[in-house]
Amino acid sequence: MTEHIQFSPEKDALVLLDQRYLPTREDWFDCKTTDDIVEALVVMVVRGAPAIGVTAAYGCYLAGREVAGSADWKAELEKNLDKIENARPTAVNLRWAVREMKRIWAEAGDVSLDELCAIWLKRAKEIHVDDIRMCEDIGKFGGELMDDGDTIMTHCNAGALATAGYGTALGVVRGAVDQGKKVSVIANETRPFLQGARLTAYELHRDGIPVKVACDNACALLMKKGLVQKVVVGADRVTANGDAVNKIGTYGVALLAREFGIPFYVAAPVYTIDPETPTGDDVPIEDRTPTEVTHVGDHRITPEGVEVFNFAFDPTPNELIAGIITEKGVLRPPYTEAIKKLFEDN
Amino acid sequence: MTEHIQFSPEKDALVLLDQRYLPTREDWFDCKTTDDIVEALVVMVVRGAPAIGVTAAYGCYLAGREVAGSADWKAELEKNLDKIENARPTAVNLRWAVREMKRIWAEAGDVSLDELCAIWLKRAKEIHVDDIRMCEDIGKFGGELMDDGDTIMTHCNAGALATAGYGTALGVVRGAVDQGKKVSVIANETRPFLQGARLTAYELHRDGIPVKVACDNACALLMKKGLVQKVVVGADRVTANGDAVNKIGTYGVALLAREFGIPFYVAAPVYTIDPETPTGDDVPIEDRTPTEVTHVGDHRITPEGVEVFNFAFDPTPNELIAGIITEKGVLRPPYTEAIKKLFEDN
Repeated sequence: MTEHIQFSPEKDALVLLDQRYLPTREDWFDCKTTDDIVEALVVMVVRGAPAIGVTAAYGCYLAGREVAGSADWKAELEKNLDKIENARPTAVNLRWAVREMKRIWAEAGDVSLDELCAIWLKRAKEIHVDDIRMCEDIGKFGGELMDDGDTIMTHCNAGALATAGYGTALGVVRGAVDQGKKVSVIANETRPFLQGARLTAYELHRDGIPVKVACDNACALLMKKGLVQKVVVGADRVTANGDAVNKIGTYGVALLAREFGIPFYVAAPVYTIDPETPTGDDVPIEDRTPTEVTHVGDHRITPEGVEVFNFAFDPTPNELIAGIITEKGVLRPPYTEAIKKLFEDN
Repeated sequence: MTEHIQFSPEKDALVLLDQRYLPTREDWFDCKTTDDIVEALVVMVVRGAPAIGVTAAYGCYLAGREVAGSADWKAELEKNLDKIENARPTAVNLRWAVREMKRIWAEAGDVSLDELCAIWLKRAKEIHVDDIRMCEDIGKFGGELMDDGDTIMTHCNAGALATAGYGTALGVVRGAVDQGKKVSVIANETRPFLQGARLTAYELHRDGIPVKVACDNACALLMKKGLVQKVVVGADRVTANGDAVNKIGTYGVALLAREFGIPFYVAAPVYTIDPETPTGDDVPIEDRTPTEVTHVGDHRITPEGVEVFNFAFDPTPNELIAGIITEKGVLRPPYTEAIKKLFEDN
C-alpha cells in the first residue's frame, strides 16, 4: 500500500492520505503548521493511535518551524506542543509522542531552534520507521495465535492506515498470511465513522486478503452461526491492569465473544500501554461531534432536532481479553503483573 | 401522527407513506396492483410485521380488483395471493393476512369477484382498525411494566410506522406516557436500513416523547453507564417456545441486557406468534440486497468489489426475554406453556 503518512522535504510538510474520503476518493492533506496538524487529528484526516503518535511527532517539528523568527520562540513552541498534545484525549500515543519530543528538547539543553528542529525531524522519522517494525513484530507474535482457516473478526481499523504501516490488529492478520495461513476477515463496519467498512475493507482488499463487511449489530448472529474463530482489535490505550480502551463497540464485541467462547485479542505496541492510568474507567472518553452520527456523507439520517450519543471509545475490561499482543511478545493474564514486568524489563 | 397506511376509495388504491425517504422527505407511494404491493413490501416502502400484515390484507383486495375481466380470474387471483404471501419470508403476519383472506374466500363459497372484493375490503379495514386497538392494549399492559423515570432502549422501529398506528414496542412507551410516567427513549440507529435513527426518532420526536439516537455499537457502553433501565423491542415472529425473531442486532442487545441485569421485553400482537414453528432457529432469515449495507442514500461506504453480510433478522432465545407483551396480557416464562395456553384460551 502507498504510505499514507509521508514527510515531504520539498514542501517541508507532512502529507497525509485523507481518510475521511476513503474508499471513494484518494485525497491528500498537507500539514505545514500546528493548526494543520491539530485539524488533521481532530477531524480525523488521520486516526488510529500509532498513526496519531507518528503524526504528532512530525507535528512537533512543524510547530518548531512555525515559530522561526519569533522573539519568544520557546514560549510559543510550548504553546504549540500543548495544542498538539490536547488535540484528542483518548489515545495515549499522542501524549507519548509530544512528551518524547519535550524530553528530547530538555535533554538537548540550550540549542538553537534550527538545531532542535533537525533533532526532532530525525526523531520523528525514527518513530515513523520504528512503528512499522513494531507492527511487523506484533504480526509475527500474533500470527502464531491464528489458525489456518480462521475467520478473524475485527472492529474499527487497526491496520496500515491506523499505524505507520502494516497495522496492529491487521498486522496480526498479515502476520498469519505471511506465515502461510489461509485466513479471512470480517470487518465490522464501525459506525459512525465507518472505519471498518471504509478503511479495513479498503486496505485488506488491496492486499488481496479476503474481507467481508458486516454491520456492527450482526455480530451476535455471525458468532452464533460459527462464522468467527477469533477476534483481534487494536487499542487506543491499555491501562495498568490490562483494560483496553478502543473504538466504541469493542466492549460489546468482547462480551459477545465471551458468550460464544471465541478468543478475543488486543494488538498494540508497548507505547500504547499507559502504566500511569490504573483502569479503563479512568481514561477520558472523547465525546465527538453529533454530525458524525446524524449524517453519512452529506446524507442526513436523523430528524432535525433529535439528539444523539457519540462517545468515540469504550473500555474493555481485562477479564475479556485472552492476550495482549505487543512487539515484545504476548501478554497473558494476570495483566497487572505482566505489564509491571514488561516495563521493568524494558 | 398522520396515518401512514391509507386506503383511498377515490383512487381505489392503498396509499403508503414511503418510509425509505423519512425523515427528510414525506413521499407517498400508491399501490394499485399486486406488483405495486409486492414492490412496496420488498423495497420496504412499508415494513414492520403488523404494518406488513395490514398492507397484505389490502393487497389481496387489490389483487382481486386486478383480475376483473379475466376469464380464469380464480387461478390468476391465487397466483397473485401467493406472490404477496412470498414477498418477504420472516414476518409471520404477512402469511397470516394472506391466509386469512384465503380462508374467507373458501368460506364465502361460490361468490362473484365483486362480492369477494367487497368482503375482502371490509375485512382489510377491520384488520387495520383491530391492529391499532391491539397496539393500544399492548401499550396498556406494557406501560404498567415501565417505571417513572425509565430510559427505555429500543431497536429498529416497532412504532406507529411498523403497525397501523400506536406501535408495539413504542406502544409500550406511549402506554407508559399515557399512564403519566415520565420516560425517555434511546433509539438504536439500526443499520443498515436505519429504522431507529430515521423512523423511531421521527415518530417519537413528533409526539414530543424524549428520544436520543445511538449507534448500535454504543449499546454496551450506554448500559454500563446505567443509562438504560429497560429494553423493549418488537418481533417479526415469536415461535412456539417464545423465541423472538426480530431485526438484526436484537439478539446482541438481549445478550448485553442480560449482562447488565436490564429487563428485556418483546411487544407483539398475538398474531405475530407462530405456534407452528418450534424455535427461532427454524424461522427463515431474509438475506437482503447488499446495497443496503454498501450505500447510505447515494453515498457508497464500502470499496467496490468487497462483499457484505445483510441478514435482516436474528432470533433471540426465550431465556433472554423477561416477558412477551401482547394485547391479551404479558406472557411469562416458561413460554411454551404460556403460548399453548394462550392459543387454547382464544
